[in-house]
Amino acid sequence: MTTSLYPFARRMAHVEPFRVMDIQQRAFELEAAGRSIIHMEIGQPDFAAPAPVLERARQLLDDDRLGYTDSLGLPQLRTAIAQFHAVQSGVVVDPARVMVTTGASGALMTLLGSLVNPGDEWLMPDPCYPCNRHMVSLFGGLPRLIPTSAQSQFQLSAATVREHWRPRTRGVLLASPSNPTGTRIAPDELRAVHAEVRANGGVLIVDEIYLGLTYGARRDSALALGEDVFVVSSFSKYFAMTGWRLGWLVAPPDAMRGLERFAQNATICPPALAQHAALAAFEPASLAICEARREEFQARRDDLIPALQGIGFKVPTLPDGAFYVYADCSALATDSARLARELLEAAGVALTPGDDFGVHEPQRWLRFAYTCDRTLLRQAVARLKEALPHIKCAVGAA
Amino acid sequence: MTTSLYPFARRMAHVEPFRVMDIQQRAFELEAAGRSIIHMEIGQPDFAAPAPVLERARQLLDDDRLGYTDSLGLPQLRTAIAQFHAVQSGVVVDPARVMVTTGASGALMTLLGSLVNPGDEWLMPDPCYPCNRHMVSLFGGLPRLIPTSAQSQFQLSAATVREHWRPRTRGVLLASPSNPTGTRIAPDELRAVHAEVRANGGVLIVDEIYLGLTYGARRDSALALGEDVFVVSSFSKYFAMTGWRLGWLVAPPDAMRGLERFAQNATICPPALAQHAALAAFEPASLAICEARREEFQARRDDLIPALQGIGFKVPTLPDGAFYVYADCSALATDSARLARELLEAAGVALTPGDDFGVHEPQRWLRFAYTCDRTLLRQAVARLKEALPHIKCAVGAA
Repeated sequence: MTTSLYPFARRMAHVEPFRVMDIQQRAFELEAAGRSIIHMEIGQPDFAAPAPVLERARQLLDDDRLGYTDSLGLPQLRTAIAQFHAVQSGVVVDPARVMVTTGASGALMTLLGSLVNPGDEWLMPDPCYPCNRHMVSLFGGLPRLIPTSAQSQFQLSAATVREHWRPRTRGVLLASPSNPTGTRIAPDELRAVHAEVRANGGVLIVDEIYLGLTYGARRDSALALGEDVFVVSSFSKYFAMTGWRLGWLVAPPDAMRGLERFAQNATICPPALAQHAALAAFEPASLAICEARREEFQARRDDLIPALQGIGFKVPTLPDGAFYVYADCSALATDSARLARELLEAAGVALTPGDDFGVHEPQRWLRFAYTCDRTLLRQAVARLKEALPHIKCAVGAA
Repeated sequence: MTTSLYPFARRMAHVEPFRVMDIQQRAFELEAAGRSIIHMEIGQPDFAAPAPVLERARQLLDDDRLGYTDSLGLPQLRTAIAQFHAVQSGVVVDPARVMVTTGASGALMTLLGSLVNPGDEWLMPDPCYPCNRHMVSLFGGLPRLIPTSAQSQFQLSAATVREHWRPRTRGVLLASPSNPTGTRIAPDELRAVHAEVRANGGVLIVDEIYLGLTYGARRDSALALGEDVFVVSSFSKYFAMTGWRLGWLVAPPDAMRGLERFAQNATICPPALAQHAALAAFEPASLAICEARREEFQARRDDLIPALQGIGFKVPTLPDGAFYVYADCSALATDSARLARELLEAAGVALTPGDDFGVHEPQRWLRFAYTCDRTLLRQAVARLKEALPHIKCAVGAA
């Protein structure tokens, strides 16, 4: 529960700050004071949009009035997104089931705003993307965080869903690959979770915004499970277009008109320039750039994990997607939130502690985003190595 | 109440489609079939963003990675917006009270999401912008539409607010100039409404997205009334940047941290390119362009109103802002919704009927948006003149 002076609606007591934004702000303050900071806190690629997207955007500024688009998004972009699902995951999707949104945030707000009744329970893994539970709260729902562990790749299983399903449970929200852990749910387990949810008459929402950034595995989509699954995706991560605020969702055919009605009222439409420019994201030249970057992310991961292990962090399961390492710091410090603050001030390395992502032993975990180049990552590890012996929250310290 | 096959949350039964989007879609279908359509249905200027904004956007595509910004918006843009309030309305606003949003839609969602408790009543004039009442419903509130008339410029008065205030009333939401009527609330009446709301311990939200488009009157802002008023504004109308999805709100100082928390979770941040480019909207060259366009809009209004009166529409009070004429068609037809459909099919003129904007005698009213040039406006009136004698929903028709 957080408090506020202003008399806000009751729901706001359940909506916590997105702490990583506060950490970033402190990092910026230190930089403004002349300190060198290595940013591993925010989940955004250190790349710009692919060159063809930028070039398309330049043309549009000359040619187009950039007015409102359809609330569901440009028809040609909805078609292009459907084709991308076929190319990436081998799933045929009717463009009529695709809705373009203002980032994955817009997709989640539209979905949860349309689906969550007050008092409904929604199951999600702990740890997970923090806004998920807060958005459920915004619409009067009750997020139920289910503790997970490295043994299950920090993902839910059909057994845990069955165990926690109650009469008021309405659905399951999971992400694969996951933020903050970078781990995927096993395809068979996802199929079993889907069957369990369907058997209970519930709703399954799968966040696939990191699906393009999968390492050493197929990019299987939950869309293959059936038309009843809601899938959320985004141009932010694989296409490196965070600030463009463009995402999408794929929904059951009979849900589209209701989702459209929500979007007409809540947003009118997603940003027009971003929508037009994003058409160029699916050109072969753009996809080649994104694939090269994916390989670079994988190389960073392969450098970073042993280096972190070498200075006392534990990485109990290999993250095979996204650009995060969720590292266990319990051998080093008593509280990851204090550790993150100390390391930012002492070493100039910005990290995100576990308490942004859940309530199950968050003090054990730190999220490292490998969204800076390998030289900087090596510097970061060297700085941490130097700072760790002097931290005040060390295990066994007085 | 609208129905849907998909089992949506209960609130969705109160969220109607934004009908103008459906009308626009039918207009596009007719155009695709080769028909000539004059678009007077959608509330968006027939201009692109001012040239300096476009130029700034081009530079950014070369120079900037376009990542996430602060959730409250770029600090320099918040400062520029505060200065604009001083220039436009002579009100000094602390930039710390300014929050940049994803269009005025984002501002309204953030405000109503943060403020509306389930069961709260919110007063608003009938007619008004339709999304207002649906957004209140989205968060479990009860929109109370208060019938207005041309005698009060379709605005609420302190007396009507007093008359309708009940124990569950939480606030008042009004717009000046108003959509769909283009009329302003008299400054003294607004002051009295504010005093009434304050005396009841309520919240006053004033939508000023059309304030820059005011004709023959000062652009007084509700911000002058005190720091407790919430003001919503936008780059969409005066700056002709609809598709950029950029707006802002000004809020009481002690509400900012809570609003930020909502935005961190619900949107992360507004579009980055739009934010950076919008800084150029306040340059003298941009403002000169916007002022010339304002004069053009005024000239269109002065042409259009007598022309509409000449073919049987009544315009009972002069709209002194926005780009709308809300015309009484009751001498011509029995039902404005049927009339709008017939005129689109028969005359190729797209208009929005009153039932998008409220429930108080909507069948009497049609909204004309003068968002096309004067030649087209004259053509539209000529087409209407020719079509009206043949309409099936004519007054007195069998």
